[in-house]
Order: sequence, then C-alpha cells, then structure tokens
Amino acid sequence: MTLSKKYKIAIVGASGYTGSELARILIHHPQVEIVAITSESHAGKKFSDLHAQFEEILELPLIRAEEVQDLKPDVIFLALPHGVSMEFVKKWQASAAKIIDLSGDFRLKDPEVYKEWYNKEHTYPEGFEGAAYGLPELHEEQIKKAKLVANPGCYPTASILALAPLFAKGLIQPGSVVIDAKSGTTGAGIKHGPTTHFSNVNDNFKAYGISSHRHTIEIEEQFQGLNSQEVRLQFTPHLLPVDRGILVTAYATVNAPSEMNREKLTKLFTEFYQDKPFVRIRKQAPALKDVRGSNYCDIYPFWDDRTQRVIVVSVIDNLVKGASGQAVQNMNLMLGLDETLGLKQVPIQP
Amino acid sequence: MTLSKKYKIAIVGASGYTGSELARILIHHPQVEIVAITSESHAGKKFSDLHAQFEEILELPLIRAEEVQDLKPDVIFLALPHGVSMEFVKKWQASAAKIIDLSGDFRLKDPEVYKEWYNKEHTYPEGFEGAAYGLPELHEEQIKKAKLVANPGCYPTASILALAPLFAKGLIQPGSVVIDAKSGTTGAGIKHGPTTHFSNVNDNFKAYGISSHRHTIEIEEQFQGLNSQEVRLQFTPHLLPVDRGILVTAYATVNAPSEMNREKLTKLFTEFYQDKPFVRIRKQAPALKDVRGSNYCDIYPFWDDRTQRVIVVSVIDNLVKGASGQAVQNMNLMLGLDETLGLKQVPIQP
Amino acid sequence: MTLSKKYKIAIVGASGYTGSELARILIHHPQVEIVAITSESHAGKKFSDLHAQFEEILELPLIRAEEVQDLKPDVIFLALPHGVSMEFVKKWQASAAKIIDLSGDFRLKDPEVYKEWYNKEHTYPEGFEGAAYGLPELHEEQIKKAKLVANPGCYPTASILALAPLFAKGLIQPGSVVIDAKSGTTGAGIKHGPTTHFSNVNDNFKAYGISSHRHTIEIEEQFQGLNSQEVRLQFTPHLLPVDRGILVTAYATVNAPSEMNREKLTKLFTEFYQDKPFVRIRKQAPALKDVRGSNYCDIYPFWDDRTQRVIVVSVIDNLVKGASGQAVQNMNLMLGLDETLGLKQVPIQP
Amino acid sequence: MTLSKKYKIAIVGASGYTGSELARILIHHPQVEIVAITSESHAGKKFSDLHAQFEEILELPLIRAEEVQDLKPDVIFLALPHGVSMEFVKKWQASAAKIIDLSGDFRLKDPEVYKEWYNKEHTYPEGFEGAAYGLPELHEEQIKKAKLVANPGCYPTASILALAPLFAKGLIQPGSVVIDAKSGTTGAGIKHGPTTHFSNVNDNFKAYGISSHRHTIEIEEQFQGLNSQEVRLQFTPHLLPVDRGILVTAYATVNAPSEMNREKLTKLFTEFYQDKPFVRIRKQAPALKDVRGSNYCDIYPFWDDRTQRVIVVSVIDNLVKGASGQAVQNMNLMLGLDETLGLKQVPIQP
Repeated sequence: MTLSKKYKIAIVGASGYTGSELARILIHHPQVEIVAITSESHAGKKFSDLHAQFEEILELPLIRAEEVQDLKPDVIFLALPHGVSMEFVKKWQASAAKIIDLSGDFRLKDPEVYKEWYNKEHTYPEGFEGAAYGLPELHEEQIKKAKLVANPGCYPTASILALAPLFAKGLIQPGSVVIDAKSGTTGAGIKHGPTTHFSNVNDNFKAYGISSHRHTIEIEEQFQGLNSQEVRLQFTPHLLPVDRGILVTAYATVNAPSEMNREKLTKLFTEFYQDKPFVRIRKQAPALKDVRGSNYCDIYPFWDDRTQRVIVVSVIDNLVKGASGQAVQNMNLMLGLDETLGLKQVPIQP
Repeated sequence: MTLSKKYKIAIVGASGYTGSELARILIHHPQVEIVAITSESHAGKKFSDLHAQFEEILELPLIRAEEVQDLKPDVIFLALPHGVSMEFVKKWQASAAKIIDLSGDFRLKDPEVYKEWYNKEHTYPEGFEGAAYGLPELHEEQIKKAKLVANPGCYPTASILALAPLFAKGLIQPGSVVIDAKSGTTGAGIKHGPTTHFSNVNDNFKAYGISSHRHTIEIEEQFQGLNSQEVRLQFTPHLLPVDRGILVTAYATVNAPSEMNREKLTKLFTEFYQDKPFVRIRKQAPALKDVRGSNYCDIYPFWDDRTQRVIVVSVIDNLVKGASGQAVQNMNLMLGLDETLGLKQVPIQP
Repeated sequence: MTLSKKYKIAIVGASGYTGSELARILIHHPQVEIVAITSESHAGKKFSDLHAQFEEILELPLIRAEEVQDLKPDVIFLALPHGVSMEFVKKWQASAAKIIDLSGDFRLKDPEVYKEWYNKEHTYPEGFEGAAYGLPELHEEQIKKAKLVANPGCYPTASILALAPLFAKGLIQPGSVVIDAKSGTTGAGIKHGPTTHFSNVNDNFKAYGISSHRHTIEIEEQFQGLNSQEVRLQFTPHLLPVDRGILVTAYATVNAPSEMNREKLTKLFTEFYQDKPFVRIRKQAPALKDVRGSNYCDIYPFWDDRTQRVIVVSVIDNLVKGASGQAVQNMNLMLGLDETLGLKQVPIQP
Repeated sequence: MTLSKKYKIAIVGASGYTGSELARILIHHPQVEIVAITSESHAGKKFSDLHAQFEEILELPLIRAEEVQDLKPDVIFLALPHGVSMEFVKKWQASAAKIIDLSGDFRLKDPEVYKEWYNKEHTYPEGFEGAAYGLPELHEEQIKKAKLVANPGCYPTASILALAPLFAKGLIQPGSVVIDAKSGTTGAGIKHGPTTHFSNVNDNFKAYGISSHRHTIEIEEQFQGLNSQEVRLQFTPHLLPVDRGILVTAYATVNAPSEMNREKLTKLFTEFYQDKPFVRIRKQAPALKDVRGSNYCDIYPFWDDRTQRVIVVSVIDNLVKGASGQAVQNMNLMLGLDETLGLKQVPIQP
C-alpha cells in the first residue's frame, strides 16, 4: 500500500452528535485529514472541550464557518439543523468542495413539498436539482457524480432499506404499508428538553408525531422513485429508552400472495443487497445492539403464511448508518474511494 | 362505614411477579384478608424471604398448595405457569372457593385450539365451559356469575381494549388489523434466562415471536366474539428495556372511511368506555409511566385523514391491569363488591 | 371507625416532582383533603394537565399562591425551590396553618451558614428559631410542637439515618466518616438541563459536587447535634441512571474496635430504631427497589473485622422518605395523628 | 509502511464477553491475525453464531482447545474462568506461545493467598514465578520479558491506577484508604443468573461482596509492591444498571496534609502518567461514557482542603482497559510492538 493523498475535510457544526460522530469515524479514516471543525458559539475552544471523550485525541481549535474556505477543504460535512444548512449550501455552491448535508434541507424532491412538511420557505430551491439522495444502496451512481449529497434521515434509512426490494420489484400494495418505527433518544439531538429529560424517557416508552413526522414524505418519495406508483404509507415513530438505534417493523400486503413464500422472500432480499457491504440479511430478528456503533443495516424479511403478509424488521445505529457513517460512505463514493474505508468498526455489543 | 366481612384469600404461587403483585394490592384491600400464600419449593420460608420489599409488611409463612383448602378460602388466585394451573382447577372444582386463574389455561374457547398454540394436551377440558374470560370491560356479567375466571394475558388486555369499540360496532376490516406491541421484561417472568439477561436487554430492543405468539389467538377469539366475523390479525411483540408496561400501536382500515373523522372516533371510544373506571380515553398519545403501578388502561384513538386509517395507542402496566390488578378487579366483581376496591393506586411517575 | 375530621391541605408548588408526589400520597390519606394546589405559571389549568398520571384522579384547578389563605388550610406544604420558600414562610408566619417546607431554607441552624453554602442572603432569619428539623426518627417531640418544619434533604435523610445510632452513642471518630452517596436523577428535579439529558445519564455514571454539595453541612450539623463534637465529614454524591432512589455507603472508624463486633452493631441499630415504623434493619445489603415508592429507609450495618471499620448501607426513595413521604410523616406528627397514616404503600418491585 | 509480519493469535474461550471483545479489537490490529478461537461446547459452529454482531465480519469456525497448538500461535489469550485457566497454562508451559491469562489464576503473588480468597487449591503453583502482573503503567519492563502475563482484574485496574502515584511516593496512610467502586453488569459475565436478571438491575442499585470481594487482595498486593508497607484497605463494589464501565471513588488521608494542595496533587498525577498513552488526567470528574469502548483510564485527582483528604475518581471500560484492551496492550509489549497498536478507538459517546 502506497501512502495516498489525504483529502482535507471540514466539519461544519461541532456541537451536536452527528458532528462528534463524524470526528470519531474520520479520525481513523486512512485517506482523509480533518482540517477544520466549526462552531459559531464555541469558536476558540477546543473540540474536546465540547466532547470530553476526545481529550488527548482530537484537540483541534474550533473555528467559525466563514473561515472554512480558507483551508480549501475537499469535502465539507454540514452537521447543522435544517434551515441553517441551506444557507451554507447556497453560499458555497461555487466552491471546489464537495458538500454532504446531514440536515433535511435537500432530501425531498421539491421546494413546495419541503415547505409543506418543514413549515419553512426554502431559500435555495436551485440546490435541489443537483442534489443526490445519499442512500448508497440505491443511488450509488448519482452519488459518485454529485457535488451535493443530501444525507438521508435516520428513520428513512432504516425504513427504505427494509422495503426497497419489494417496492423495486413492484410486489406490494403501496397503500398497505405500515411502518412502526422505534428510535433511541439521540435522534432528537444533543439539545436538552422535556422530551429527553431522563425521567421522562427512562423505563418509559411512547409514540409521537403520529401521521405528521417529516420523515414520512421522505420515505414515500423514495419508494415512489422505485416503482413510479404513488405511495401513501403509515409511519409511526416511537421513543425508546436507549441512546442509539432505530428498529423498524414494516408490514405490507403483497400483490400475489400465492406466489410468495419464505424462501423466495429471503432470496429477493439477499440478491437485491448482494454487493452492498453494509446490509446484512439476517436469519433471525435483529436487535439494536447487533449494529451499535457500526455502519451496518441488519434486515430480517419474514413471510407470514397465516396472514399472507410480509413483515420486515430492520435495525441501524441512527448516528452511524442513520447519519455520520452513511455520510462518510457517501464521501468515499464521491471521492472514488472504496465505499467501506474507515467504516469497518465492529458493532459494540454489549 | 361499618366494618364488612373480610373475605379469605389464598394466593397459590408465591415466587413470581404476579404473586408478589397480588400481595401488594390485596394487603391494602379493605375487604379481604390474605390467609395463605403457597410455594412448593419454598414452603416454610416467609413470603418476605422471597420478596425483600415485604420485610416487616407481609411475613406470612409459605405453605404448600395442598394445605390451602383447610383454610377455607373464599377466593383462590392461581399465580402459576400454564399447564400447572389446570391441575389445580381440576382438583378444586368442587370446592366452595371461587378461582381466578392468571395463567393461559382457560383463556381460549376450545381445548383443541389450546393444544395447537400451547403445544400441550389440555387435561381438564371440562373447565372451559364454566370459565369466564376476565376482561371486566367486556364481560362483566359473566364474570359476576363465574366460579372460574380466566384472567386475560397482558398483551391481549392492551390489544383488545384498544380495538374493542371498533370491532363491537363492526367498523373495521378484520383482515387489515396490525397490532405492533411492545412490552417490558417482567412479562417474561421472574425466572432469569438469556432473554432477560441485563446486557441483552439494556440499551437494546428487538422483535420476537413474530406471527407465533400465543396471545395472537387469544386476541382473535375475543374480537370474533364481538362481531362474529372471522379475525386473522397481525400481532408482533417486541421487548423493551423497561421493567413494566405494555404499549400497543394498533392499525386498522375502516369499512367506511368517508364517514369517519377524529371527533366521531373519539366519541365512539368515550361512550364505549363510559362507565369503565379503569379505561381513560386520552387526548394525547400516552406513555408507559402514565399508568405504571396502577390498574388503568390509557387509550388514544387517532384518525389519520391522510391515510384514511385508524391508529389506536394503548398502555397498561402488564403486572397490574395486565395481570394482578385485573385479577383483583375480577375478584371484586365475583364477590359483588365495588369494582375499584383496593385498586385506586395513583400511577407512579416518574 | 368513625369518620374523623378531614384536615384541609394546601400544596404550594404544583409543577415539580415533590408536588406531584405529595398529591399521590395525600389523595389516599384518610384524614386529609387537598383543598388547594398552586402554580404561578399554570394557574387556571388542571393539576392533571401538568401530571398526566392524575387524569380522572385529581383534576383540581391550579390557583395562585396568594389565594391559598382564603381556603384556611390546616397544613401548607411548600414544594418550592430554596430562596422562594422563605418568602412564603415569612408572609404566612402569622397564619393559623402549620407549614412544612420541603426546600433547604430552614434546615440549617444559622442564617450565616446558610449564606455560605447557599450563596444567598437569608431574608427571614427569624424563621430559624421555631423551625424543627423534620426527621421524625430523631426529632419527633420537636416536630409535634412545631409550627414550621424544615423537611430534610434527600441525601441527609439517608446519610443521617445510616450513622445516627453510632453518633448518638459516641462510638465513632467524626473525622473518619466517608459518605459515598448515589442518587437517581429525580433528585435534580423536573426541570430539564444537560445534567439530566437522557443520553448524558443513561448507561452512564459520574460523581459531582465533590466536597461542595450543600447537603454536607446539613448532615454535619445533625451529627453534631447528636454528640456535641464537631463533625467534618467527606460527602461525595454520584448520579445514577435511575429515576428514584438514594443509596448511601457510609464508612467510619470506631473508637474502640476491640469492643465491636457484628452482633453488637446489629443490636445497636435494631434497638435504636425499635419503635420507628419506617426504618427496617436489614440482614443483607438492600437495593434501591426494596423501598421504591414507599416511605421506608432500609439500613444494613456491617462490621468489617478485617479492616476494623464500620460500613453502613442505607437506601430510600428520594421522592418519598427523602421528600414528600417524610413531609406527610411530619404532618401526621404535627396533627397528632398516627405517624404512618397514608404511608403504608408497599414498595414497587420490580 | 511495509507490510510487517502478522503474528498468529489464538483466543481460547469464545463464548464470553472478554472473548468477543478480544475479537473486536484484534480484528483491526494491523500486525496480528486471529488463527483460532475455541469453544468446547460450541466447536463446529461459527464465531458469529455465538455473537451476532460478527455476522459477515468474523465467521471463523470454532475449534476445541486441544487443536490450538497445531496452529502454532505466537500468542494465546485465555478468556476462561479462573480455575480452568491454570490447567491450560500448565499444559502449554513448554509451548513457544506467549500466554495472556485474563482470569484471576496468576494475579496474586502466592498460591496460599490464592487458596484463601478463591476457595480453591491452585494446581500449578510453579506458574506464579514467571508470571508478570499485566498492568503496563506499572510493570512495563516485566511484561515485555514475560512468557505468561496475568491480566489484571477490572476493579483492580481502575483502583490501582487511581492511587498508584500516591502509594509510589509514600504519601498516604495505607490504613485510611476506602475504595468505593461501582461496576456495570458485564463484569459479571455473559452467563445469566438472578444477579443480572434485567428487572433486578434496571432502575436499581446495590452494594455486594462487602469486605469479601477477591479483587481486594489483588489491589492490596499491588499497593504493597509499590511501597513495601502492609496495606489493608476497604473495598466495596456496587452493581450499576449499565452495561460497561467501572467508576472508582477512592479516599485517602495523606501523611503530611499541610504540604499538599490541589496543584501539587495534579502535578503528581500528571508526571506519574506522563508517558502512559492510556491514562488521561482530567480536570473534571469523568463519567463512564467518557471512556466507553476504549482503552482509556480517565483519572481525576482532587484535594479537599476542608477535610484534608485526597479523593480520586477513575473510570475505565471494564471490558477494554479492564480486560481485553489491556490484554492487547500487554500483547503489544510482549511482542515488542507499539503499545497502542490496534487500541486507538475513540470512546463511544453517547
């Protein structure tokens, strides 16, 4: 192995979980170097002042976002809230850097739909056109060519991968789909609030955002892209008393039940994800910890003969495959590198 | 208030969670006295030797089940595993005591169906006939007259109460029903095993028993009883990293979507459970802790205009409304007492 | 039993955990009636709007504190932050109501010491004089006569009860005492913040406030009161990933090791707490859940022959014996009622 | 970088947590190759059949221990229970492989002491002589030369590192030391039992093994080795409701309080661990998650002016620095490699 060029990386948005998780992954990536991490409110402090786990590991001083371009980064990760992200995409559209946006600002197909679900006027509608939806298992070629990648939401990642083979082959009735999703609290971010107050979560469980969660439309659009039928599905998120992880239980009625059985279903999934290094088709229902800290999505497809229905269980670590790991996977593709570089962490279990 | 007669109570099966939970509730019941608690393997020890929380509170010496009848109990609770319970029901059929069986032995309608789902020949098929299914919100009159009450399973309690109003009125398509259920670990009992090993549960989550859980048929039979249509539903249990609590998210397609709306749905539920002291129709999705330690079942019915589907979320404490509390509620009815006696504990939150 | 007079109770401060816990306990107390619950910011709403577990149980409309006296309460509980509480004690000093203050405002013996540890000038120093320190196991007679009771802190309750028998008999070296204390997060209150953000607590553990926690001086003063020696002890609190409960591990060197042994130590504790209904001397190290939801303090005294040191482990539910339960115990004494009235809840385990 | 020789590694004992954690670390170690993993009861199965997180990552077939030597491993890790380990050390004493024993069989200095604390006759007392105690921060030179390394216990690692600088300089009174230690449940292993039953641990906390835990003597012996004074200390372990992590709060009285202050204490620790890559001296009390999944030991030394006492808080991940990570650190030293190879994982937080 000859020492290759190291690409220069900037992480815009240091304070949240996706920012620290990007650092955790990129720090051991053999072909990149983190040259900048930004924070408007903490500029001047060290990265490890915000995230104690990085003491003596990554003590880079935080800079302001406006200083990023001086460092001529090859890739910029935007680890920012939606609404803020689009401003930077707009501002840096002409720069040489490739941009991976971890917010929801460019995930949908249309600024009007964005407005409807995000209650906010989009200020850079032109950006939608060139943006690739960064789910490598479905859009590898587009991602490779993109200058801007919209990194998928955490729920959509687990949900889309769970049902994509069935939608791609047109095997299920779009109106029958129910996605019952459960997430750990880090999906809600690092910012404290009543929802994530320990005693409100610990030893507790609840549904939230029934029928109104923004990820619903993101999932629907992706499924529509797979088989050009209109898709309107039921998506219900729930809050688990765990840190990391999303588990999706997806239900669907197939178009031709008499032609389906367990073997065919498993074969369909195995073949669909054949060359996809981060999807593992499991023979048993997976648990969150089977993928914790890693970039895997474990999927268990199940055919229920009794009810003639397909059930698919999928799990991801919402901060890795559901956010920062997937962003690095996208970066690898955009830079022409091996998709798995820097992403081979074994899940942490227990 | 004049001091009424105290009924004599025996708890058969001291070592498990339903046994200790029965004691916790009955000890403050104003009209009963616990005269016996049994354990074959711990006879001679005190009840508090098994359950330290009862030190200086309930130090009754444990006796063997065969000694119970000498004490002439008015009511016997069987807190035993299925398969064991039926032997005692058979043996004590002629005794004067009313029996409340917390196991699954008499919940189904037919010994053949029992055999199919429990992999076990039923040894007292005659018992089925007189047995009432102990869900007071649906079967109050039968329970009042019964000598033997089969206390419902925990999942069935939460699931049936969630959809009963819709089934009773024939408003939904039976084949459309998906019940995605999540339970704390106490549902698996006090006995340790890999499933309940701390590190396998903590910060973790998984589905289990997909399409094969015994409670499926129990739920189906009850819904069939409500509208005489055959019901085959999808039931998927999941294991939560919490001690107590079941949350059910139930999905169904209505027969006449154009006639349904949110107000009508809420009205339907409110009226159906009007006189039921332990069902609370909520205006927001409830959390497990809203009912923890109490006999309440909180239900949130939701009409999704976008998907034209009904979603109902319900929560119970699996050890109280899902087991021992419901058993005491049944006892109250069987003895002609106020249904709520001894059961007014406020939920423990946080 | 003849129906006795019902005392009128006001709870000032509805929104926190001690307020809701007072309601949970008092609602089933046979000789009191809650006539008022106050909240400045939520006046007009129902109590159950703030604490969903009380739906259909306690839906009393919240009033403002200034309206309380119109209702002529017999007892007022102040469930307020320190600094705020003293203002109400001052304002209501001449009213007929007995006051139980759950804040730290009148727990210490001296306004100067208060200022030093609470960084705040005390605005009602006159209040100290009549105030009783509300630990019934030590100060029953004073409490019975008091108009104002300062309800002890949660850590002090567990710590003082753990070592009181040894201090009272002058058996230990005050300078040798190390109290290593561990608390659930509800001790930090209902208000969210980084400290109680779920992901900062879950699957985590840390020490905090080393050598500077306010409860240190409260504990020291009480021990000094028991044997008139100056006490300067080491107190280290830690934050547990649990909702409720404090466990104290206390270490001390005895003055005459050769005269101590395990039997003597157990006897000392058993006799000291002989008539105290809420202290249970245990034969094994207790766990938090042995007392959860109840007013018990379980204590395990241990003599270590090898190191010639005494170790005492004690546990309480910080919201019950460490706050609201103890407050009701104090109320019972102040009203001349049986100390245990309304407080016989069996611990919730599991 | 030229591709160096890959050392051949065998892991004896596949089924437990230390075995899977060794695999997680070694799989990415640039200079080793796992050639064998053994299991007597699961031989023939794949490693990933036992640990689902390794699916498609490490699917090596498990072999029996007796087959290990055929593969001529350079290093053998014994991830076995104590009592079993010594048999293999004995059996393989003449083989060329270096052995790292993760059990307690060779940690103490004397077979007699072993017998006393482990209730078991040692069957290979000759092994003690050549064994190095594998705490690299204290015994680097011995480890480098050793053929057999006894990998330290988890509690001892955190405890010894917390106080070693003070003992090494003779600054504290040995009789004054109190070590109050708290551990996650993985310290108790993968085997289920009442102690690790989810509902007995979750939302709970307790002390155990007061004054009798085997790690007590291990810690004492190491401190004696540092300053040749007899040490008899107080060690109290507690069980935390977390998966991984040990936090030690250590208390000690210094010999010359008037010469101690916070700066001196910090300087002492900083200098003592100057060249030690895995010890981080912190300026604030660390939390378990600051080191989770990593080989770090974070230490916070604190001088309490008020009580004239030293308090040291230390944290480790019990499965990494407290077991498998430390074992790999020892391996690196034994093989003459950089101590940190394969061990630079960033802590997983949250």
